[in-house]
Amino acid sequence: MKNNDISILGSGLIGSLLSIYLRKRGLDVHMYEKRADNRKSAYKEEGRSINMALSDRGWKALEDLGLTEKVKPLTIPMYGRKIHDEHGKTTFIPYGKEGQAIYSISRGKFNQLLIDEAEAAGVNLHFEHKIEDVSLKDNTLLVSNPEASHQKIHSEVIIGSDGAYSALRNAMLKQVRFDYKQEYISHGYKELTIPATESGEFAMDPNALHIWPRGSFMLIALPNPDKSFTCTLFLPFEGKRVCFENIRDEKDVEGVFKTYFDDAFELMPNLSKEYFTNPTAALINIECFPWMQGKSLLIGDASHAMVPFYGQGMNCGFEDCYILDKLINKFGTNAWELVFAKFQKVRKPDTDAICQLAMENFEEMKNAVSDPKFQIRKKIEAKLHNLYPLDWIPLYTMVTFSDMPYSEAYAQGKLQESIMDRVMADPLITQNWDKLDYEDIIDQMDKAKAV
Amino acid sequence: MKNNDISILGSGLIGSLLSIYLRKRGLDVHMYEKRADNRKSAYKEEGRSINMALSDRGWKALEDLGLTEKVKPLTIPMYGRKIHDEHGKTTFIPYGKEGQAIYSISRGKFNQLLIDEAEAAGVNLHFEHKIEDVSLKDNTLLVSNPEASHQKIHSEVIIGSDGAYSALRNAMLKQVRFDYKQEYISHGYKELTIPATESGEFAMDPNALHIWPRGSFMLIALPNPDKSFTCTLFLPFEGKRVCFENIRDEKDVEGVFKTYFDDAFELMPNLSKEYFTNPTAALINIECFPWMQGKSLLIGDASHAMVPFYGQGMNCGFEDCYILDKLINKFGTNAWELVFAKFQKVRKPDTDAICQLAMENFEEMKNAVSDPKFQIRKKIEAKLHNLYPLDWIPLYTMVTFSDMPYSEAYAQGKLQESIMDRVMADPLITQNWDKLDYEDIIDQMDKAKAV
Repeated sequence: MKNNDISILGSGLIGSLLSIYLRKRGLDVHMYEKRADNRKSAYKEEGRSINMALSDRGWKALEDLGLTEKVKPLTIPMYGRKIHDEHGKTTFIPYGKEGQAIYSISRGKFNQLLIDEAEAAGVNLHFEHKIEDVSLKDNTLLVSNPEASHQKIHSEVIIGSDGAYSALRNAMLKQVRFDYKQEYISHGYKELTIPATESGEFAMDPNALHIWPRGSFMLIALPNPDKSFTCTLFLPFEGKRVCFENIRDEKDVEGVFKTYFDDAFELMPNLSKEYFTNPTAALINIECFPWMQGKSLLIGDASHAMVPFYGQGMNCGFEDCYILDKLINKFGTNAWELVFAKFQKVRKPDTDAICQLAMENFEEMKNAVSDPKFQIRKKIEAKLHNLYPLDWIPLYTMVTFSDMPYSEAYAQGKLQESIMDRVMADPLITQNWDKLDYEDIIDQMDKAKAV
Repeated sequence: MKNNDISILGSGLIGSLLSIYLRKRGLDVHMYEKRADNRKSAYKEEGRSINMALSDRGWKALEDLGLTEKVKPLTIPMYGRKIHDEHGKTTFIPYGKEGQAIYSISRGKFNQLLIDEAEAAGVNLHFEHKIEDVSLKDNTLLVSNPEASHQKIHSEVIIGSDGAYSALRNAMLKQVRFDYKQEYISHGYKELTIPATESGEFAMDPNALHIWPRGSFMLIALPNPDKSFTCTLFLPFEGKRVCFENIRDEKDVEGVFKTYFDDAFELMPNLSKEYFTNPTAALINIECFPWMQGKSLLIGDASHAMVPFYGQGMNCGFEDCYILDKLINKFGTNAWELVFAKFQKVRKPDTDAICQLAMENFEEMKNAVSDPKFQIRKKIEAKLHNLYPLDWIPLYTMVTFSDMPYSEAYAQGKLQESIMDRVMADPLITQNWDKLDYEDIIDQMDKAKAV
């Protein structure tokens, strides 16, 4: 039987990043991945989104490991949302202050880079190794690979960064007093493409996240370095109106796109083919507790898979790694149970908060962003933040452009929301927004905080 | 490969009752149970409560199958709660009107009777058959027994009445768009005994459910036909005050019992021995959806395990069987998917409601029942029910002594609760309760309903 210091399950973004962190502490780190090495074979995503939005929390961990300069060339900054209305008219709403952006990055390329870095750091990589089961009693993995079936591997520490369908979590699920929730939302998604133009250019502004909000459904698009956009169509699975169930043939697809997303439709020559070739995937939210069992720990999506609407899944997972590393730094590599206990205690309220925010942001993206008042609201909040940078920080900024604990962002965001609801109730707000008594709004916030 | 019409997983109370229902419709019914035949070997409960409280919904299904007279001799009626205060003083609070009772019954004896009835009806019993896995694609069970391992058994229909740790549900858990939640509460329980007296009599009033409510914990006792009582001690697992973690030796046990349950302690000669022999069990709440997958269906605890504080787990499971049978009667035995779809649609809001009520009733049992105002409240509600039997039915009565859908009982209970909160806010309620304007309370209820 093999005996590793640390076994990491899954070589996705979180597992790879964590393996580098742990290797830097001089540990014997082994990473097990059921897929083949994606640096050699064509990368097939299988129901995971193709590109992500890297933001401050993610960059912070990359910076910590000295990887910023290597990652930057893979990214495209998006400075705001570009909202497309039903007539093709667009409106730009910035995400933050001038210069603040979230960064579009391809999952495949990014993952390859992190695995290269892990290998260079001395992490032992085991591709095509499937975790059949985990014995929590004796920290033993049951692993199958093309050469051997059900091999036993013992580790002092097992970390499950194996995503929403985690094998380690499945083992924990059978333990008494393990709380668990998995919840699918009513909407699914399908990825489509807006290719580069014939002259090899981006077909739309590449420095924005494009949104076609349509109330009960929406389309979004993120830029890729090859000048294409990856579009994601979010529809209800079933229902009476526009939904996946009711789109049965080419005519239906084109009907929906011509009616609701006509400007995008003009840019999608392969729409119908892609629509019926690409899978329709479901969206899951997972919460569980505890995350540890002895010297085993869940991290990233394995412990808190979230819906993608705040663009924080990967960033939150990277922040998990950052926080875990700082606890290892404090308590050492001989106190795993203490480290894990501290980690889950400090981190659980924050991941609960971001899971909830991600759920709530779906409403904002498919509805509110198309409301003219939404823009006014964002402008008022931006001005408040400008005038009183410490007293009023828009929720999106706290989540995306800071490393404030998510749970604090959530609480402060709720306070601000209730005050903004009152401000927006002014029937003349559209004309008056610039002449409001901004100091009074801050006073209201101070009073609300004091309660 | 065998080919059954119907395979029922688990021969517990719900599975046995359901098998009789289905056999009566002329179907080829096979029931698989991982344990040995409990009619032959000593019955070992393994972490499930020893006696239950049978009430109207349970009796209704038994009556439907002509089993009332056979079950009755196994039961002991309990007409109300007998509350024990810290000085041993007791107060009786009736559950309903005169003559209304819930019935204490031993799980083991009851289960044996139902299995006998199933066998007599022609159900094929398969004990010591463990369900290793279920293939939902082709409705095939993977079954191991002492003679053969991983035998494949195909069935037209599979029904999982295999409880909180259901094998069928585990298979469904891996399906996309299966929502699932398992949640343990902070308290665990341990069963203890008050034996019959030396002269062979009950040591306390046998026609009541005894409760020692102590705020953050409690003890209860139900009578058995052998003149003993089964006591259940509910304590937090851990904490600063009284909890399982802090009871380490005989001295600790006796200290807790002498301080908080002195009158019970006097009747428990084997307390310490039992305390350290019997397991401490956890309490789980499970909700999931959908309950069906093609021609497979979850029923009873497998689909909605609840905490035991409303005494409705078994009763709700029996009502599941009753409702399912009526749907089969309506749509026939050639429309299983339609029957299952109707069943889960009509039943889910009701099981959600009773799961929630069971959770809330824990607070009432360990806290409120010891408050003198709780008695006044019950008296006012009893009088309202007496004066206006159709307009005001106490929540406990709707749940326990009627077959009103749980979700309606829940909604009406919440309305009544808010009105009673106002009534009880009268500082002189203790003196005035009998002289209230009862008609006005009913008017308030009518108004609240109209909103």
